[in-house]
Amino acid sequence: MYRVKVQILPKDGVFDPQGHTVKGALEKLGFNGVKEVRLGKLIEILIDVEDESQLMVQTKAMCEKLLANPIIESYQLLDVEEVP
Amino acid sequence: MYRVKVQILPKDGVFDPQGHTVKGALEKLGFNGVKEVRLGKLIEILIDVEDESQLMVQTKAMCEKLLANPIIESYQLLDVEEVP
Repeated sequence: MYRVKVQILPKDGVFDPQGHTVKGALEKLGFNGVKEVRLGKLIEILIDVEDESQLMVQTKAMCEKLLANPIIESYQLLDVEEVP
Repeated sequence: MYRVKVQILPKDGVFDPQGHTVKGALEKLGFNGVKEVRLGKLIEILIDVEDESQLMVQTKAMCEKLLANPIIESYQLLDVEEVP
Protein backbone atom coordinates (compact mmCIF):
# COMPACT_ATOMS: atom_id res chain seq x y z
CA MET A 1 0.00 0.00 0.00
CA TYR A 2 1.30 3.44 -0.93
CA ARG A 3 0.31 7.05 -0.25
CA VAL A 4 1.13 9.38 -3.13
CA LYS A 5 0.89 13.16 -3.24
CA VAL A 6 0.23 14.74 -6.63
CA GLN A 7 0.46 18.45 -7.45
CA ILE A 8 -1.68 19.85 -10.25
CA LEU A 9 -1.01 23.43 -11.30
CA PRO A 10 -2.02 25.61 -14.23
CA LYS A 11 0.55 25.38 -17.04
CA ASP A 12 2.93 28.32 -17.42
CA GLY A 13 1.34 31.00 -19.55
CA VAL A 14 -2.22 29.90 -18.77
CA PHE A 15 -4.18 32.67 -17.04
CA ASP A 16 -5.00 31.62 -13.47
CA PRO A 17 -8.13 33.55 -12.41
CA GLN A 18 -8.23 31.93 -8.97
CA GLY A 19 -4.60 32.78 -8.32
CA HIS A 20 -5.24 36.32 -9.50
CA THR A 21 -8.19 36.65 -7.11
CA VAL A 22 -6.23 35.31 -4.14
CA LYS A 23 -3.41 37.75 -4.91
CA GLY A 24 -5.86 40.66 -4.84
CA ALA A 25 -7.35 39.48 -1.55
CA LEU A 26 -3.90 39.13 0.04
CA GLU A 27 -3.01 42.67 -1.06
CA LYS A 28 -6.25 43.99 0.49
CA LEU A 29 -5.19 42.29 3.74
CA GLY A 30 -1.92 44.21 3.59
CA PHE A 31 0.43 41.56 2.19
CA ASN A 32 2.00 43.97 -0.29
CA GLY A 33 5.09 41.88 -1.08
CA VAL A 34 3.06 39.26 -2.97
CA LYS A 35 4.07 39.33 -6.66
CA GLU A 36 2.28 36.26 -7.98
CA VAL A 37 -0.05 33.50 -6.76
CA ARG A 38 -0.71 30.20 -8.53
CA LEU A 39 -3.55 28.10 -7.21
CA GLY A 40 -3.72 24.38 -7.91
CA LYS A 41 -4.88 21.06 -6.52
CA LEU A 42 -3.09 18.79 -4.16
CA ILE A 43 -4.35 15.21 -4.30
CA GLU A 44 -3.32 12.59 -1.78
CA ILE A 45 -4.17 9.03 -2.82
CA LEU A 46 -3.94 5.85 -0.75
CA ILE A 47 -3.60 3.01 -3.23
CA ASP A 48 -2.98 -0.74 -3.04
CA VAL A 49 -0.59 -1.81 -5.81
CA GLU A 50 2.11 -4.47 -6.05
CA ASP A 51 5.21 -2.29 -6.32
CA GLU A 52 6.52 1.20 -7.06
CA SER A 53 6.75 0.66 -10.79
CA GLN A 54 3.04 -0.27 -10.83
CA LEU A 55 2.43 2.78 -8.67
CA MET A 56 4.07 5.08 -11.23
CA VAL A 57 2.08 3.57 -14.09
CA GLN A 58 -1.24 3.89 -12.22
CA THR A 59 -0.56 7.40 -10.92
CA LYS A 60 0.33 8.62 -14.43
CA ALA A 61 -2.83 7.01 -15.81
CA MET A 62 -5.03 8.51 -13.06
CA CYS A 63 -3.60 11.97 -13.73
CA GLU A 64 -3.97 11.72 -17.49
CA LYS A 65 -7.45 10.15 -17.45
CA LEU A 66 -9.10 12.18 -14.70
CA LEU A 67 -7.13 14.31 -12.26
CA ALA A 68 -5.41 16.82 -14.57
CA ASN A 69 -6.80 18.66 -17.58
CA PRO A 70 -3.99 18.07 -20.11
CA ILE A 71 -4.74 21.28 -22.02
CA ILE A 72 -4.32 23.77 -19.18
CA GLU A 73 -2.80 21.84 -16.30
CA SER A 74 0.48 20.06 -15.53
CA TYR A 75 0.88 17.38 -12.87
CA GLN A 76 3.83 16.39 -10.76
CA LEU A 77 4.37 13.60 -8.24
CA LEU A 78 5.47 15.30 -5.01
CA ASP A 79 5.83 12.43 -2.61
CA VAL A 80 5.58 8.64 -2.37
CA GLU A 81 5.31 6.85 0.94
CA GLU A 82 4.91 3.13 1.55
CA VAL A 83 2.37 2.50 4.29
CA PRO A 84 1.87 -0.76 6.22
CA MET B 1 12.33 37.25 -3.40
CA TYR B 2 11.05 33.80 -2.47
CA ARG B 3 8.70 31.23 -3.98
CA VAL B 4 6.82 29.21 -1.36
CA LYS B 5 4.59 26.21 -1.86
CA VAL B 6 1.79 25.68 0.68
CA GLN B 7 -0.35 22.58 1.01
CA ILE B 8 -3.87 22.92 2.42
CA LEU B 9 -5.75 19.70 3.16
CA PRO B 10 -8.92 18.81 5.07
CA LYS B 11 -8.11 18.01 8.69
CA ASP B 12 -8.11 14.33 9.65
CA GLY B 13 -11.62 13.21 10.52
CA VAL B 14 -13.29 15.94 8.46
CA PHE B 15 -15.46 14.44 5.71
CA ASP B 16 -13.96 15.28 2.29
CA PRO B 17 -16.83 15.19 -0.25
CA GLN B 18 -14.55 16.15 -3.15
CA GLY B 19 -12.08 13.41 -2.29
CA HIS B 20 -14.94 10.96 -1.97
CA THR B 21 -16.25 11.94 -5.42
CA VAL B 22 -12.84 11.62 -7.05
CA LYS B 23 -12.41 8.17 -5.48
CA GLY B 24 -15.71 7.04 -6.98
CA ALA B 25 -14.76 8.40 -10.39
CA LEU B 26 -11.38 6.64 -10.29
CA GLU B 27 -13.09 3.36 -9.40
CA LYS B 28 -15.48 3.76 -12.34
CA LEU B 29 -12.42 4.19 -14.57
CA GLY B 30 -11.11 0.87 -13.30
CA PHE B 31 -8.59 2.01 -10.67
CA ASN B 32 -9.80 -0.52 -8.10
CA GLY B 33 -6.77 -0.29 -5.80
CA VAL B 34 -7.68 3.20 -4.63
CA LYS B 35 -8.55 3.11 -0.92
CA GLU B 36 -8.78 6.81 -0.08
CA VAL B 37 -8.49 10.19 -1.82
CA ARG B 38 -7.97 13.53 -0.09
CA LEU B 39 -8.35 16.63 -2.21
CA GLY B 40 -6.79 19.89 -1.16
CA LYS B 41 -5.27 23.11 -2.45
CA LEU B 42 -1.73 23.75 -3.51
CA ILE B 43 -0.79 27.43 -3.44
CA GLU B 44 2.43 28.74 -4.91
CA ILE B 45 3.28 32.30 -3.86
CA LEU B 46 6.03 34.55 -5.19
CA ILE B 47 6.73 37.07 -2.44
CA ASP B 48 9.26 39.84 -1.86
CA VAL B 49 10.39 39.83 1.80
CA GLU B 50 13.69 40.64 3.52
CA ASP B 51 14.65 37.19 4.79
CA GLU B 52 13.44 33.69 5.56
CA SER B 53 12.28 34.51 9.06
CA GLN B 54 10.06 37.29 7.62
CA LEU B 55 8.92 34.76 5.03
CA MET B 56 7.79 32.30 7.71
CA VAL B 57 5.92 35.00 9.61
CA GLN B 58 4.13 36.26 6.48
CA THR B 59 3.32 32.79 5.15
CA LYS B 60 1.80 31.77 8.49
CA ALA B 61 -0.24 34.97 8.59
CA MET B 62 -1.47 34.54 4.99
CA CYS B 63 -2.57 30.97 5.74
CA GLU B 64 -4.32 31.89 8.97
CA LYS B 65 -6.00 35.05 7.66
CA LEU B 66 -7.11 33.86 4.23
CA LEU B 67 -5.77 30.72 2.60
CA ALA B 68 -6.83 28.00 5.07
CA ASN B 69 -10.12 27.61 6.92
CA PRO B 70 -8.84 26.93 10.46
CA ILE B 71 -11.92 24.91 11.42
CA ILE B 72 -11.73 22.23 8.73
CA GLU B 73 -8.35 22.65 7.07
CA SER B 74 -4.68 22.29 8.03
CA TYR B 75 -1.82 23.96 6.17
CA GLN B 76 1.77 22.93 5.69
CA LEU B 77 4.74 24.63 4.04
CA LEU B 78 6.02 22.19 1.40
CA ASP B 79 8.84 24.08 -0.21
CA VAL B 80 10.79 27.35 -0.02
CA GLU B 81 12.97 28.56 -2.87
CA GLU B 82 14.93 31.80 -3.08
CA VAL B 83 14.57 33.31 -6.54
CA PRO B 84 16.77 36.03 -8.02
